[in-house]
Amino acid sequence: MIQDIEIGQGKTGRMCYSLDDVAIVPTRRTRDPEDVDTSWQVDAYEFDIPVIGAPMDSVMSPSTVIEMGKLGGLGVLDLEGLWTRYDDPEPILREIAQCPQEESTALLQRVYAEPIKPQLITERLHEIRDAGVTVAGALSPQRTQDLYQTVLDAGVDLFVIRGTAVSAEHVSQTHEPLDLKQFIYDLDVPVIVGGAANYRAAKHLMRTGAAGILVGSGGGAVSTSRTITGIHVPLATAIADIAAARKDYMEESDGRYVQVIADGGMGFSGNFVKAFALGADAVMLGTPLARAAEAPGLGMHWGHEAVHPTLPRGRRAEVGTVGSLEQILLGPSHQADGSTNFIGALRRAMASTGYVKLHDFQRAQVVVAASHN
Amino acid sequence: MIQDIEIGQGKTGRMCYSLDDVAIVPTRRTRDPEDVDTSWQVDAYEFDIPVIGAPMDSVMSPSTVIEMGKLGGLGVLDLEGLWTRYDDPEPILREIAQCPQEESTALLQRVYAEPIKPQLITERLHEIRDAGVTVAGALSPQRTQDLYQTVLDAGVDLFVIRGTAVSAEHVSQTHEPLDLKQFIYDLDVPVIVGGAANYRAAKHLMRTGAAGILVGSGGGAVSTSRTITGIHVPLATAIADIAAARKDYMEESDGRYVQVIADGGMGFSGNFVKAFALGADAVMLGTPLARAAEAPGLGMHWGHEAVHPTLPRGRRAEVGTVGSLEQILLGPSHQADGSTNFIGALRRAMASTGYVKLHDFQRAQVVVAASHN
Amino acid sequence: MIQDIEIGQGKTGRMCYSLDDVAIVPTRRTRDPEDVDTSWQVDAYEFDIPVIGAPMDSVMSPSTVIEMGKLGGLGVLDLEGLWTRYDDPEPILREIAQCPQEESTALLQRVYAEPIKPQLITERLHEIRDAGVTVAGALSPQRTQDLYQTVLDAGVDLFVIRGTAVSAEHVSQTHEPLDLKQFIYDLDVPVIVGGAANYRAAKHLMRTGAAGILVGSGGGAVSTSRTITGIHVPLATAIADIAAARKDYMEESDGRYVQVIADGGMGFSGNFVKAFALGADAVMLGTPLARAAEAPGLGMHWGHEAVHPTLPRGRRAEVGTVGSLEQILLGPSHQADGSTNFIGALRRAMASTGYVKLHDFQRAQVVVAASHN
Amino acid sequence: MIQDIEIGQGKTGRMCYSLDDVAIVPTRRTRDPEDVDTSWQVDAYEFDIPVIGAPMDSVMSPSTVIEMGKLGGLGVLDLEGLWTRYDDPEPILREIAQCPQEESTALLQRVYAEPIKPQLITERLHEIRDAGVTVAGALSPQRTQDLYQTVLDAGVDLFVIRGTAVSAEHVSQTHEPLDLKQFIYDLDVPVIVGGAANYRAAKHLMRTGAAGILVGSGGGAVSTSRTITGIHVPLATAIADIAAARKDYMEESDGRYVQVIADGGMGFSGNFVKAFALGADAVMLGTPLARAAEAPGLGMHWGHEAVHPTLPRGRRAEVGTVGSLEQILLGPSHQADGSTNFIGALRRAMASTGYVKLHDFQRAQVVVAASHN
Repeated sequence: MIQDIEIGQGKTGRMCYSLDDVAIVPTRRTRDPEDVDTSWQVDAYEFDIPVIGAPMDSVMSPSTVIEMGKLGGLGVLDLEGLWTRYDDPEPILREIAQCPQEESTALLQRVYAEPIKPQLITERLHEIRDAGVTVAGALSPQRTQDLYQTVLDAGVDLFVIRGTAVSAEHVSQTHEPLDLKQFIYDLDVPVIVGGAANYRAAKHLMRTGAAGILVGSGGGAVSTSRTITGIHVPLATAIADIAAARKDYMEESDGRYVQVIADGGMGFSGNFVKAFALGADAVMLGTPLARAAEAPGLGMHWGHEAVHPTLPRGRRAEVGTVGSLEQILLGPSHQADGSTNFIGALRRAMASTGYVKLHDFQRAQVVVAASHN
Repeated sequence: MIQDIEIGQGKTGRMCYSLDDVAIVPTRRTRDPEDVDTSWQVDAYEFDIPVIGAPMDSVMSPSTVIEMGKLGGLGVLDLEGLWTRYDDPEPILREIAQCPQEESTALLQRVYAEPIKPQLITERLHEIRDAGVTVAGALSPQRTQDLYQTVLDAGVDLFVIRGTAVSAEHVSQTHEPLDLKQFIYDLDVPVIVGGAANYRAAKHLMRTGAAGILVGSGGGAVSTSRTITGIHVPLATAIADIAAARKDYMEESDGRYVQVIADGGMGFSGNFVKAFALGADAVMLGTPLARAAEAPGLGMHWGHEAVHPTLPRGRRAEVGTVGSLEQILLGPSHQADGSTNFIGALRRAMASTGYVKLHDFQRAQVVVAASHN
Repeated sequence: MIQDIEIGQGKTGRMCYSLDDVAIVPTRRTRDPEDVDTSWQVDAYEFDIPVIGAPMDSVMSPSTVIEMGKLGGLGVLDLEGLWTRYDDPEPILREIAQCPQEESTALLQRVYAEPIKPQLITERLHEIRDAGVTVAGALSPQRTQDLYQTVLDAGVDLFVIRGTAVSAEHVSQTHEPLDLKQFIYDLDVPVIVGGAANYRAAKHLMRTGAAGILVGSGGGAVSTSRTITGIHVPLATAIADIAAARKDYMEESDGRYVQVIADGGMGFSGNFVKAFALGADAVMLGTPLARAAEAPGLGMHWGHEAVHPTLPRGRRAEVGTVGSLEQILLGPSHQADGSTNFIGALRRAMASTGYVKLHDFQRAQVVVAASHN
Repeated sequence: MIQDIEIGQGKTGRMCYSLDDVAIVPTRRTRDPEDVDTSWQVDAYEFDIPVIGAPMDSVMSPSTVIEMGKLGGLGVLDLEGLWTRYDDPEPILREIAQCPQEESTALLQRVYAEPIKPQLITERLHEIRDAGVTVAGALSPQRTQDLYQTVLDAGVDLFVIRGTAVSAEHVSQTHEPLDLKQFIYDLDVPVIVGGAANYRAAKHLMRTGAAGILVGSGGGAVSTSRTITGIHVPLATAIADIAAARKDYMEESDGRYVQVIADGGMGFSGNFVKAFALGADAVMLGTPLARAAEAPGLGMHWGHEAVHPTLPRGRRAEVGTVGSLEQILLGPSHQADGSTNFIGALRRAMASTGYVKLHDFQRAQVVVAASHN
């Protein structure tokens, strides 16, 4: 077992792995795919499939949030996105989809400069609640303080705090930062928080009382963080690290099991499946759902990082359209490229390695093997 | 010797190697290529060349099975393919070959929905037997129970059970799974079974009494399993592992030698040769034979995985035509790309490293070296 | 910790890493970007931003040196470049920019054959001093002996000696080489010297009394040294090594802190940021500043190595124009490709990892992760 | 120091490195390039530059052999090439150069089917001798027995036996193989023999009394051996290994120093330079010299392996023309791509690392660093 590599005499670093670097290997037992159980639960909320729609404007609108719920998963609306800035964001979404690539960043900066309207938060969440599905909305750590009361008053079942790198200990010289622990303690809805990049960051977030931790920095296919800030979280390593933190925290807390939710970098179903084999309880999907016929992005995809007014760290990417949300999640597939039937792929992999429950599949044997192999 | 790598704190995995990652290095002795012996034997059946034609519709038809036999190898007919579903599959094969790429998966799904006709199994096997070559047919583990009696009644010399991941211990809640050990015990023809991915899976399959183990998941150039399910078997590691299992099982069983047959990923003759140097007794070829002028796929190639009705995990690939089946196997080559004269390449490599027998060549020195080197 | 790798039986070598091979990982604390301090000081000279404009004709003219100073950084004029060979280099710069690629090396060789005029050195440096910014000029080790008196008489605040590989111990059979230690001792302005490639080379340069060490061989995007001479300095390893030398030399010298300045290979802001996380105090930028609207290279970029009369080891590269010098250094960005707002990126990364001071950020956690990940 | 890697449970292999994988790092001392000594000696023959022209028809004709000698190197004529098969090979060379790529292998097979004419061997060697340069000719191990007397009678200073994998111990069932040791003992001219791939193969060849060992399998840019036979010799590892064998053999033989000559894979001058830093005494060049205006290949390049009648393992490659033979070897360069001024590059690298003699440069510090870095 190699731990640290000497980068230079003054500096060591771990060798880290992305999902592309690893693969699952079947061993001696197999099962029927139909015998596999893919259900997932966070707090009192149960889901047929361990999939969360990422709170991104290209993926989750009120209507796709509702559809996600009906298909057995959880959709999360970005409460700082276009749906809470504009009465009717549809023309804006079309403009973004049709904008030439070289002008797209400037356009995103402009349309996201429009202020958030608290009353739109309320309206959007009511619309989701009225459809009878689990209601979840996401805020960034920076805006949580200002907007959470609006969100709670509107009524949510689950609260998501999502940023590129969220820490339990934010320090600021200019304002009183969010005391995450106190905040979660005061709230009476479960909170999912992240992204966290490693054991230590995640353990501290677990100690705030969060019900789930988002692993990674979300961005995936549309992030350019590594090129711009040098920051990067190789996801296979991060998921495994944070699964270890979950285990240690469970001992430390006398049994509190915190959900580990992989977020980002799941372009195709193979990486989605590997996330579970590395220890994830659920996966937050962006790009795959942006390819749905129903997706608000109309074949385009972008993240929160892409709209920053002075340092955008993501781009609008053309992901195309491959089928309905249902086909993407539950199949059937009529192409063999990993863009549809994510749950079918998960079932097949669990069956090929002999596991019935997602919890047991977290122990599946993985290997390191270059992805060209 | 490095065994396990820490992917993250909660998870370790072996570093695995594909055939592309390794190379053979000559040492101090050389021989003449013509002094080399490439013969191979499974049970009572002897072959001049250690090559098995993969039971895939793009590769093996009754007539190419017969030709394989006449050239000194073993052809295996897929008994769940088009030849046992259609009286005359030729028009279907042409339709597949001419179909635009984006519609090919849907077309495969449709034509393979046609039921298998037991009487066609009988007819096809009789046709092969009448030609005087060794008769071998393949079933999937799922269908073996239903169809093997038909196969046995038609008369086969060798029985092949081939799936993506075949285990000795399949568990099902809805039906009584095939008891492989009992099945092989009851049968009076030798059984070749696989794919197996590692030592443990293979050892269990050896214990069922199989005469040969298929190593790998078959797919090769036409599989998209890694992208879709995250499952992948790096073949250099798998062959070496399972050669070790063969040795250990031979001790455990007081001398039963089980054939290790590498299956998939042999696009060019170099990888075919390496499979032996890593411990294989024979190799099952798909893509290389799909490039034959006689190949039923007419320059196209696809596998079993590609026809799954809801989760296809392979695609129809255009492999082209490079020469006759004889040229591909025995030469001569008039291009220098590794697509023809597989046996000539094997002879040359054995000669350059000083080995006469395939069994001894399994000890050839190999190195790990990036394939761009 | 792996130190040495056996390349072959007679030879070992360290595994070295480039900036592309590493990434920064956030841990448990975060801050606000606006709370970050990016100031830097060498000797008595203080700068708001830790950026030095590379002494290359495509990057630094008298006017861009002045603008660099006004933006809070340090510009360095190449005193052996076109500005000291020609009264009016503008037409030459246009000719270089418009020359077809295949003729560009020969053109560079020709225009740099023109002798250096000492009086032009004096004029250019006076022009910079008159603008009220810190005055710094660069000579190669080969020419320092001949020209330094002219430079000192003209008046400089900082003296830069920059070559591909500069050693404290140059040996020559034909001329008396520069005694760097005596030279620096005699001078009364601080000297920055390099490129140095590793701990040992840097430690010897530190012992000459240099105020700063340039790490790397400068070339970056426009160097072809590795292809031509086999020499290459992987920068992540070199920066970390030389940061270790700085620490050891500080003990050895009872507290003299030598500035470690990463030079070359910073095409985009991510690598610029990583240089600090690996131990750099400041970074010398070439390619990024050659992309400025004000850059004398007019969208083209080339280095000293490219003009050698018999063995050019670099090429003229088209880098394009992305914005003003101010936008490149201080933002805002309206594209998300890492070519603008370098200081914003540095602030963001320091904030995400919880550091206020550059010195502390040198301890940031880094990992090794393939850049495709 | 890592020695062996577990490829699978039954098989280990060394991690091997190509020249592209390594780089030279300067340390604390530098010199002037003009103070460097690049002379080389094998037996009684001295050369100004450590370069041997590879016996390949695209590189060495009688006239380029003579020019190599006049430029200070050693040219070797292939005595089994077109010059000893045809009275006038020029039309054949033109035909090869103009042939479409897809027909080139068949054409090579056809023109090399013409028998070798002993009297042409005599004529060609006389022509070279008459020019007053060192005379060297090459035979393959297969033909040495038949043709060497003709060669000796014609008069050669150095004898080269060159094949893909030449061993000291060739075994044949059909003919009496060449007893290399006896052969070299009987001859009174020094023999250079290879390719050898590792320590053991080379040590055995050294014991035959050879004056020099060719390292590698020659092919380089035009070989497809790895794809076709799986055999590959990563050259950085092989050179270092065989340099170690040279040292051990020198002790074993009480002081006989055998020349280690790197052969193949030196497309650009950087790899040529690295070969020395890894332990080579001289380098045999193919591709770089095939790019000469005088090269008989007329911008095309192919090796012996490419003409095999049933298993060609190389191809005709278009390498283009970059300058005169003199420019390629001695400069000056007017492009910065490593295709010209090989000796200038060697001098520069030796100077940058502070070495005067090639023997000392063999101890230069090298590192492992991915070539994209």
